[in-house]
Amino acid sequence: MKIGFLGTGNVARALATGWAAAGHDVVLGSRKPGEREGRPDGGHPVTGLAEAVAAADVLVNATPGTASLDVLETIGAAALADKVLIDVAVGLTGDMRLSHPGVSLGEEIQAAYPDLRVVKSLCTLTAAVMVAPHLLEGPSTVFLSGDDEPAKRTVAALLTDLGWPATSLLDLGDIATARGQEHFALLFLGIAGALGTHRFNVRVVPAVPTGPGTDPA
Amino acid sequence: MKIGFLGTGNVARALATGWAAAGHDVVLGSRKPGEREGRPDGGHPVTGLAEAVAAADVLVNATPGTASLDVLETIGAAALADKVLIDVAVGLTGDMRLSHPGVSLGEEIQAAYPDLRVVKSLCTLTAAVMVAPHLLEGPSTVFLSGDDEPAKRTVAALLTDLGWPATSLLDLGDIATARGQEHFALLFLGIAGALGTHRFNVRVVPAVPTGPGTDPA
Repeated sequence: MKIGFLGTGNVARALATGWAAAGHDVVLGSRKPGEREGRPDGGHPVTGLAEAVAAADVLVNATPGTASLDVLETIGAAALADKVLIDVAVGLTGDMRLSHPGVSLGEEIQAAYPDLRVVKSLCTLTAAVMVAPHLLEGPSTVFLSGDDEPAKRTVAALLTDLGWPATSLLDLGDIATARGQEHFALLFLGIAGALGTHRFNVRVVPAVPTGPGTDPA
Repeated sequence: MKIGFLGTGNVARALATGWAAAGHDVVLGSRKPGEREGRPDGGHPVTGLAEAVAAADVLVNATPGTASLDVLETIGAAALADKVLIDVAVGLTGDMRLSHPGVSLGEEIQAAYPDLRVVKSLCTLTAAVMVAPHLLEGPSTVFLSGDDEPAKRTVAALLTDLGWPATSLLDLGDIATARGQEHFALLFLGIAGALGTHRFNVRVVPAVPTGPGTDPA
């Protein structure tokens, strides 16, 4: 697939490297492609945003969550129509609050661009782990939220390409469930503070299966 | 220990049963102890709030998060001084938003009652799992947040009495980290919707230990 990134930062470069290794074509889209001299690109081509979007089947929103809606506005609804957008961003303010409290950036992007096929995913873990689940001691969970089922299947396949087994993927439901993924950011920071590293993930541990007639509450 | 509950609901009754089984004295504190006829008490004594608080070494805030500050106000700062309060409440509004967005109920309680020793814990899992971690397929994590270290050790011991091994407990730090625990409520609801049950928990999965000189980022 042709994967175009909105953003050139740490997350964009890590995911681009992971998907390029799996055989996909990647391009990093920069807001200021003319001011890139000396800045890291992970060995990937860097273009302007419009060019990165035009060439891609799948887009990745790897901009800071506080800037994402502005970046999308510069690209425009026409260029975004019918694209799949993997939204990995979370908006955090300087004092560690969510910039979209009560709702989610994912929902707001979907509402602003109804023809964009938004799938929220990968926003609950650090870049190094996104592309290398084997760094962790055992299996862990990656969440997906989105209204478009074929788009979620596309994203699930791309997650598999990064090394995530199907058993690690948990589809939470529609894009409104992005709220939970984004709100997790504050617990992520708390856990990272306690462990002294961002290199961890959470696993959803289900109940031991029980026989019929037991209380499911 | 003498454990007094603020609240008589599902969570209060489950925890009271768990701690009574471990040999602790428990009492449920009701806002309206005279209107309890026919309502479940789990076999535990029910008194008014003031009486439950006065008799207890450790309090458990098992009121709805949206009502907790009002309940504490009726009890009053003098009666609460020097008590340990395990705050298991999360405030959710009817439309599934946090009633204390941006901050946390735990922080607000601590700020309102500086002499109360608030420890946020157990607010990330359902009552049935709080008291029976063996219901789950494997080990999982319970978080603690609070400013008072001896109070956190008391709560950690009480969690052990419920069956949580020390390796399951993760101290996130001061009471400000309660924000992460409470914000997790929205992801909890998303996961519960996907699994069709509240009976699960999350486990923090750390990175495989690496040798010296590797990049910890």
